Amino acid sequence: MKTISQAKSFGGSQGVYSHQSDTCGCEMTFAVYAPPQAEDGPCPVLWYLSGLTCTHANVTEKGEYRAHAARHGIIIVCPDTSPRGDGVPDDDGDWQFGTGAGFYLDATQEPWRKNYRMKSYIGSELPELIADNFPADMSRQSIFGHSMGGHGALTMALREPERFRSCSAFAPIVQPSTADWSRSAFARYLGEDETTWRSYDAVALIEDGASYPEFLVDQGDADGFLDDGLRPWLLEEACKRAGIDLTLRMQPGYDHSYYFISSFIGDHIDWHARHLQG
Amino acid sequence: MKTISQAKSFGGSQGVYSHQSDTCGCEMTFAVYAPPQAEDGPCPVLWYLSGLTCTHANVTEKGEYRAHAARHGIIIVCPDTSPRGDGVPDDDGDWQFGTGAGFYLDATQEPWRKNYRMKSYIGSELPELIADNFPADMSRQSIFGHSMGGHGALTMALREPERFRSCSAFAPIVQPSTADWSRSAFARYLGEDETTWRSYDAVALIEDGASYPEFLVDQGDADGFLDDGLRPWLLEEACKRAGIDLTLRMQPGYDHSYYFISSFIGDHIDWHARHLQG
Repeated sequence: MKTISQAKSFGGSQGVYSHQSDTCGCEMTFAVYAPPQAEDGPCPVLWYLSGLTCTHANVTEKGEYRAHAARHGIIIVCPDTSPRGDGVPDDDGDWQFGTGAGFYLDATQEPWRKNYRMKSYIGSELPELIADNFPADMSRQSIFGHSMGGHGALTMALREPERFRSCSAFAPIVQPSTADWSRSAFARYLGEDETTWRSYDAVALIEDGASYPEFLVDQGDADGFLDDGLRPWLLEEACKRAGIDLTLRMQPGYDHSYYFISSFIGDHIDWHARHLQG
Repeated sequence: MKTISQAKSFGGSQGVYSHQSDTCGCEMTFAVYAPPQAEDGPCPVLWYLSGLTCTHANVTEKGEYRAHAARHGIIIVCPDTSPRGDGVPDDDGDWQFGTGAGFYLDATQEPWRKNYRMKSYIGSELPELIADNFPADMSRQSIFGHSMGGHGALTMALREPERFRSCSAFAPIVQPSTADWSRSAFARYLGEDETTWRSYDAVALIEDGASYPEFLVDQGDADGFLDDGLRPWLLEEACKRAGIDLTLRMQPGYDHSYYFISSFIGDHIDWHARHLQG
């Protein structure tokens, strides 16, 4: 693991690191905020998964999470959203596919299957690296994310409820199998057999019997992607049918940006802290 | 005035605007955060002046000020750091001069004197625009800034103590006349007669009799510019001799970045709020 940068912030340390990822077959960069409490012993870990076109940097610069993480003594890990770099296949013409658009799945189709393995990367390789290099209590993990990263957080929590004590999302893509801006990516990563898509789709996972104690979701009602990409009401219906406790807050006037996320990230970190304590 | 973008944040509105500036002879861009309280009536105004190489965008994205401004009901105005654009002379080879390095002065030398007039821009033109276009109570203004912008805040407050109820700074250039990274810019903007530099130098202003009730200054002790550019001890000595109440906080382990600024911006906004209330 290489340290790219480190800076003291809110009494803790905001770092950016990279490593050669076996899973993704390329160098991967990620950010970790270690709160001041990490100097005295292991802290719980909250994963933040970012949205389309983002790297670790967007939330690190604009997310305003450090004040809250420092208050609660929580490590925040912010991975990249896809493999990238020389040798990683890409489609420059499509911001909803390839670099910046890994969709937190393991691709099965050529030429994507070798590198686009964000499910396994965040499922296995990166947590092992975190456990080995940071004062992290890996028995206490939670997860949240934004948009495509909200999709990532919901699906990972539904597939691994024992790993994540809590899960929340900002403006998540709740049913990517049917959303305009993700159907084409799913077809290219996973092939035309849509049954293979269901384990990467929060609503489909719930329909197929996956469960989770409760979710917190914030969604701006001035979000331009609300109707075509996000559609939180589909998650609401699925949770209702499955008896999953969903707190869905429609936030009046808020858009899809980090101005929205930063406004409510304190609420989300408070929520996760309650689940991570003890 | 043109609206470039607006987004709801922490219940208020973060906007970016531009206008044709008569003072600077170019289009100037700035950011304004109007807190939720601005819907009910005029709010006090806190000016944030940015450092070398910055535009309005750095603090707007990384400053983490909105939570605190919303809590106190304060409008935050973030101007650019220089004129810029076609027709504005520049020196591409020097990050400490020209575009991004206006030093909050009115240049007297050719070819800079036509455009590089940030003192008058922030002294007159921009506050008039703010008064005309935002729910701002211009009888209640305060000012703060970072690095070159800390220099700007200190010198503006010392020259106009009646305008600004309070003044604070992060890692300010306290004596730019003698600092390695600003002497050359001062000579090019203002000419070789150093007596004309003194009204743009906080320590010199205090030595020449300017006064102000009190300052709050935060300075990271891991700041790489501490010894050559910043030297807060010079301000400390000048304030002590002049009987100005300076709270200088050396912050252990902090650098010169927005990771430092955002860690303490809440303290600064609390400080200004106490002076702006009533």
